[in-house]
Amino acid sequence: MGMSKSVVTLTTDFGPSSTYVAAMKGVMLSINPTLNILDLSHSIPPQNLQIASFFLRNTISYYPQQTIHVVVVDPGVGSKRDILLVEMDDQSLIVPDNGVCSSMFLSAGSLKIYRLNNPKYWRANVSATFHGRDIFAPVAAHLSKGIAPNELGVLTDSYVKLAEAIPIQSDQKVTGEIVYIDDFGNILTNIPSNLLRSSVSETKRVRFGETTLSKFASHYAEVGKGELVALISSFDTLEIAINHGNAAKVLHAEIGAKVDVLFG
Amino acid sequence: MGMSKSVVTLTTDFGPSSTYVAAMKGVMLSINPTLNILDLSHSIPPQNLQIASFFLRNTISYYPQQTIHVVVVDPGVGSKRDILLVEMDDQSLIVPDNGVCSSMFLSAGSLKIYRLNNPKYWRANVSATFHGRDIFAPVAAHLSKGIAPNELGVLTDSYVKLAEAIPIQSDQKVTGEIVYIDDFGNILTNIPSNLLRSSVSETKRVRFGETTLSKFASHYAEVGKGELVALISSFDTLEIAINHGNAAKVLHAEIGAKVDVLFG
Amino acid sequence: MGMSKSVVTLTTDFGPSSTYVAAMKGVMLSINPTLNILDLSHSIPPQNLQIASFFLRNTISYYPQQTIHVVVVDPGVGSKRDILLVEMDDQSLIVPDNGVCSSMFLSAGSLKIYRLNNPKYWRANVSATFHGRDIFAPVAAHLSKGIAPNELGVLTDSYVKLAEAIPIQSDQKVTGEIVYIDDFGNILTNIPSNLLRSSVSETKRVRFGETTLSKFASHYAEVGKGELVALISSFDTLEIAINHGNAAKVLHAEIGAKVDVLFG
Repeated sequence: MGMSKSVVTLTTDFGPSSTYVAAMKGVMLSINPTLNILDLSHSIPPQNLQIASFFLRNTISYYPQQTIHVVVVDPGVGSKRDILLVEMDDQSLIVPDNGVCSSMFLSAGSLKIYRLNNPKYWRANVSATFHGRDIFAPVAAHLSKGIAPNELGVLTDSYVKLAEAIPIQSDQKVTGEIVYIDDFGNILTNIPSNLLRSSVSETKRVRFGETTLSKFASHYAEVGKGELVALISSFDTLEIAINHGNAAKVLHAEIGAKVDVLFG
Repeated sequence: MGMSKSVVTLTTDFGPSSTYVAAMKGVMLSINPTLNILDLSHSIPPQNLQIASFFLRNTISYYPQQTIHVVVVDPGVGSKRDILLVEMDDQSLIVPDNGVCSSMFLSAGSLKIYRLNNPKYWRANVSATFHGRDIFAPVAAHLSKGIAPNELGVLTDSYVKLAEAIPIQSDQKVTGEIVYIDDFGNILTNIPSNLLRSSVSETKRVRFGETTLSKFASHYAEVGKGELVALISSFDTLEIAINHGNAAKVLHAEIGAKVDVLFG
Repeated sequence: MGMSKSVVTLTTDFGPSSTYVAAMKGVMLSINPTLNILDLSHSIPPQNLQIASFFLRNTISYYPQQTIHVVVVDPGVGSKRDILLVEMDDQSLIVPDNGVCSSMFLSAGSLKIYRLNNPKYWRANVSATFHGRDIFAPVAAHLSKGIAPNELGVLTDSYVKLAEAIPIQSDQKVTGEIVYIDDFGNILTNIPSNLLRSSVSETKRVRFGETTLSKFASHYAEVGKGELVALISSFDTLEIAINHGNAAKVLHAEIGAKVDVLFG
């Protein structure tokens, strides 16, 4: 710590062209004009902690040490929920204490969690509906200028944990669910590639609703245009896609729906 | 003046992935490669000066001194309308003279307005349909390099004023209107919090169309999920929202519709 | 070469709030934390090389020398298609070898094309579905740090060429097609302004489907609100627009549809 940090990322459910995002950036730049502020996403579906969790888990590890990640998916704004400053694996997160990043905390190499409690580093008049502008943004900017975490908050070892679905496996079958649909309509599941093997059989099929897929490929263009295919996603999980098409639309896929992998 | 300025913000109705935005950024960086260019919004509804005005009024004051704000919501592009360079409260604005920022000028602490008239700082061949690229962008970049405003334009004291709705108040009632709907569907009115009191009565209700609300809360999560609530927005105005829901959709709210606050 | 480059632009079909974009930026910043990364567009329609080509052709020339443009519109990801590093007119492009930038190569002042072949500058485990993160992003970042192109790839003089529609002209008529529709609904054709003249007659009309336009204007506000108008776009091509309206919606215009200019 003590070093100047310069990259701040923003992940919110405010919408990409929101006044809220614009206000947060202004507040941060007014405190530290040299910040490099990056938008990760402002299109997290409103109040959707599960999707925000997936998004962040698959994104922030690519960022350099000292990056500050600000996450405002915060349905409890203004209530008693706390705001956490988390020092994790040489990065910092400023997140509501609602579980949105809890799954990452469990697997972190190093982890220190602080509850923000020092209004000296907040805006003077904190609104009840926009802590992003009034607390998250100024705290991130002060942190980037070298203010120590224990000056911004108090160390804690408890935090709200988000329940996340885990695939269920047997020798015959693995059952997971859809956790993300990308802008191509590719369907991402929570079934990791290492569960796509079984001692029972080399053969496997993917079942989603009425559809059964026995074709596995390494990349999209391995099948014809318009053809369905199962493959290993860039998240190293089972993915269902259509080459040059939108699998989610064709299969009426929705987040949370079950997907089976059948062996033998 | 004379100091190097480095933050430039863009607010347009071009759409967020427009070639027009990309071209403007290229033009600016070609003149001053060190600029920090920030997108405020490119999703202002086409030609909508009222929404652009609201957006900017509630955004740019958060930005640091020396920030240059470029606003291209410009239905009159190519016609006789002028382009203004405005030095306001230690920030600069480059805006069409169509009233899009006029409400801010009225309440500015300091204000100097110049009409751009020096093609030396424009692109060589000015198109008739894209002054954003050909005039606004290069002028912003030259200004950031320390070119003086009176070299870019000529001082003026007149400008086009945008008519903006003002709430009407009596002892019994305040009538305002919807001025913004955010991406959550929260409904923002132009009724400031200081008009939500009356000498007549402590009791008050909000009426919008067929709906009457008597519940006021300080934050969303104070009411149950799916419940309607009135509160003070982060703009310090009356807001109508649904906790975990989309109030604008449920109430069929549209910008410009009337909202009453009834006392007693 | 050898100089440090600092502006990197991104153009993809990933969607503006995609984890994929966020991951690519993280990978680049981890290699070169001083990069200035700009989003040109992430809303290229999926796998649409024609629109990507139009977008880039009308955008990147505005950028400064030394800019690195990364283009990931890449339906062949994971297949045998190569990735090119192109040194063109003092800028660099990193693009799939699928023709997405080939029309620019034909008219370039200077041009050197390399096929990427050095995994030393890629991520350790290259996925089969996301070369943007695993190859394009790290190569761009290494290039920005001064790694020489011939260290990243091998010089080539062949590349895939994209077929692009060219207007057909006679004394009586020019037939072109719609190549872009902007966010206002303005219809952009591939008919350059210098083909809007004929030796036959000064008079000309524009015909699109059932609609014939004889009104040419220099800018939108020259006609009444809601009126159709033909004009020269900021791309210096024939454009069909409605003042304060959405011409593409009203005329049911689609990319690829024919537009005629009739003389006499």
